[in-house]
Amino acid sequence: MIELQTIIDRIAPLDAGSEEQACSRQSQLTKPAGSLGRLEEIAVQFAGITGNALPVVQQRAVVVMAADHGVTAEGVSAYPKDVTPQMVLNFLAGGAAINVLARQANAVVTVVDIGVAADLQHPQLLSRKVRYGTANMAQEPAMSQQEALQAIKVGVDIVESLAARGVDLIATGEMGIGNTTAASALTACLLNVPAEQVTGRGTGIDDQQLAHKVRIIERAIAHNHPDIDRPLDVLAKIGGLEIAGLVGVILAAAARRIPVVLDGFISSAAGLVAYALCPAVKGYLLAGHVSVERGHRLILEKLGLEPLLNLQLRLGEGTGAVLAMHIIEGALRTHLEMSTFADAGVSDKIE
Amino acid sequence: MIELQTIIDRIAPLDAGSEEQACSRQSQLTKPAGSLGRLEEIAVQFAGITGNALPVVQQRAVVVMAADHGVTAEGVSAYPKDVTPQMVLNFLAGGAAINVLARQANAVVTVVDIGVAADLQHPQLLSRKVRYGTANMAQEPAMSQQEALQAIKVGVDIVESLAARGVDLIATGEMGIGNTTAASALTACLLNVPAEQVTGRGTGIDDQQLAHKVRIIERAIAHNHPDIDRPLDVLAKIGGLEIAGLVGVILAAAARRIPVVLDGFISSAAGLVAYALCPAVKGYLLAGHVSVERGHRLILEKLGLEPLLNLQLRLGEGTGAVLAMHIIEGALRTHLEMSTFADAGVSDKIE
Repeated sequence: MIELQTIIDRIAPLDAGSEEQACSRQSQLTKPAGSLGRLEEIAVQFAGITGNALPVVQQRAVVVMAADHGVTAEGVSAYPKDVTPQMVLNFLAGGAAINVLARQANAVVTVVDIGVAADLQHPQLLSRKVRYGTANMAQEPAMSQQEALQAIKVGVDIVESLAARGVDLIATGEMGIGNTTAASALTACLLNVPAEQVTGRGTGIDDQQLAHKVRIIERAIAHNHPDIDRPLDVLAKIGGLEIAGLVGVILAAAARRIPVVLDGFISSAAGLVAYALCPAVKGYLLAGHVSVERGHRLILEKLGLEPLLNLQLRLGEGTGAVLAMHIIEGALRTHLEMSTFADAGVSDKIE
Repeated sequence: MIELQTIIDRIAPLDAGSEEQACSRQSQLTKPAGSLGRLEEIAVQFAGITGNALPVVQQRAVVVMAADHGVTAEGVSAYPKDVTPQMVLNFLAGGAAINVLARQANAVVTVVDIGVAADLQHPQLLSRKVRYGTANMAQEPAMSQQEALQAIKVGVDIVESLAARGVDLIATGEMGIGNTTAASALTACLLNVPAEQVTGRGTGIDDQQLAHKVRIIERAIAHNHPDIDRPLDVLAKIGGLEIAGLVGVILAAAARRIPVVLDGFISSAAGLVAYALCPAVKGYLLAGHVSVERGHRLILEKLGLEPLLNLQLRLGEGTGAVLAMHIIEGALRTHLEMSTFADAGVSDKIE
């Protein structure tokens, strides 16, 4: 607990001076004021995050946390839980969507076994298994508070290691059959809304299965009595190991003034837990996209984040976050490379 | 007229066989069916356009057509018309937003003087001036039908030349102080809606100037009596030279089965004219983004296009279209490079 508080204490407000300098520069670039819309906002946010009025990104990474969920025993997913280890091997072989999109975005993929319910070995796999999947939260707490802290620590360690390698932009990704169930449970609890408002079809279940999934989430919340005022208690009782790991990634990145691009619903549920632990984390976050999963938009509203993309994605893995890195690059490049009115000899607005 | 009809006659429906093959491949890739959302649709559309079930893009280009508008004499813009040639020189010096974003997207920028009201010379400038800006459409037709055809021909010639250099993906861009006024007039006329519904603030005018801009557009339409059943008549009377040039780009690209990414409101007004001339052109178009300009969304609805990005852009130049090329690349790369369930040994959905 003490170590977590140390990280939280390091999360500072954005640098207002650098934001102002970046705003001033934007007003001098050869375009009508405000005409680059969200790109201008991103440039200013990155200035505030990094403390550099001309922010640049040198090295991008996506952290893909994989874990299993005991609640799959209740039949909440369209896919068997064997798919979790199978997809981890697919990530390691470079054949999944996140591999393709990360290659395109020039982002390093870090694949982490933080709780897959199978033994996995691969030279490229970061093996930091906390346990073999969570327990079935419909019957007992998904994990202990100690395990949740251990999983957060995994995320913190990974950010430290990435930062040491010069990574200065991080996307969150995940894989875990059953994890939309955990994300919905966390969202319902932390936003204090009925489960059915934040529960979607995940990988593709029908109406009847969806109704069942909602009942399981309601049961998990009723049975475990998560304490909404103690985010760590909520995370442990109805969360997931990969979600806890991403909470660590988000907090540690913010503490190091590294911007984090959230992916979809699962990643954003981790963002919501991080925000509950430390509201100042918000300034370091960007929403890569808004997912088809209905709970996602509610989380983004709570965090005050406007998604960069809306492409009807619902895959996870970090795919939407990595795609959004191109938009972020466009924002930083225009901010840095465009001519000013004075340099280009272009007339400013008629006053 | 005969030559235009020849191009229109070459615009064929998309290849349904290739689309089906692409759909079939998508269902075998290691992801839940449909989970890549719009990316899947793009891959299928490109298969239909190119007749290749595994479409690739080799060389991208953005065509930036620049021209002036006589209607600026009525005080419809926040910027003086000198800004048109000044910005053309900025494009040629590489300092504008489109230069920066095209470098990022690896797209060649072709800058065309199709009607700037100033003499411009530069080794990289394509000088195809039809006339020194349009006439003031509030008082007389913006141009003759012959001039509109000549401007369309410029766009056709450029596509022929780009295609010969291996370009297989084209974004539309433009520059011209006053051109949101022409785009609004075209949109009001071709969609048969009141001018105020499709008129926005362009580069940044206030409420009073906006009301004045609407009245000027109403006057231009009332005075010139454009014949809605003859798109060329509408284009000539209340359009612009850069818009006519882009109509040529769009039609010629579709005739050559090259996909076209529309940029913002001006580009999409050209798309609307092209659609009025030949509805089959629609299948070859993508909407790069949706602009803040209020008429833009109405055009996209008419064309049945869902924008790839919504970043509150209102700059034009091709910026939103070129940014969207990263999304398109992601779509084609995932389609081409992802493993199948069989290859990766991943279990398919529980039936």
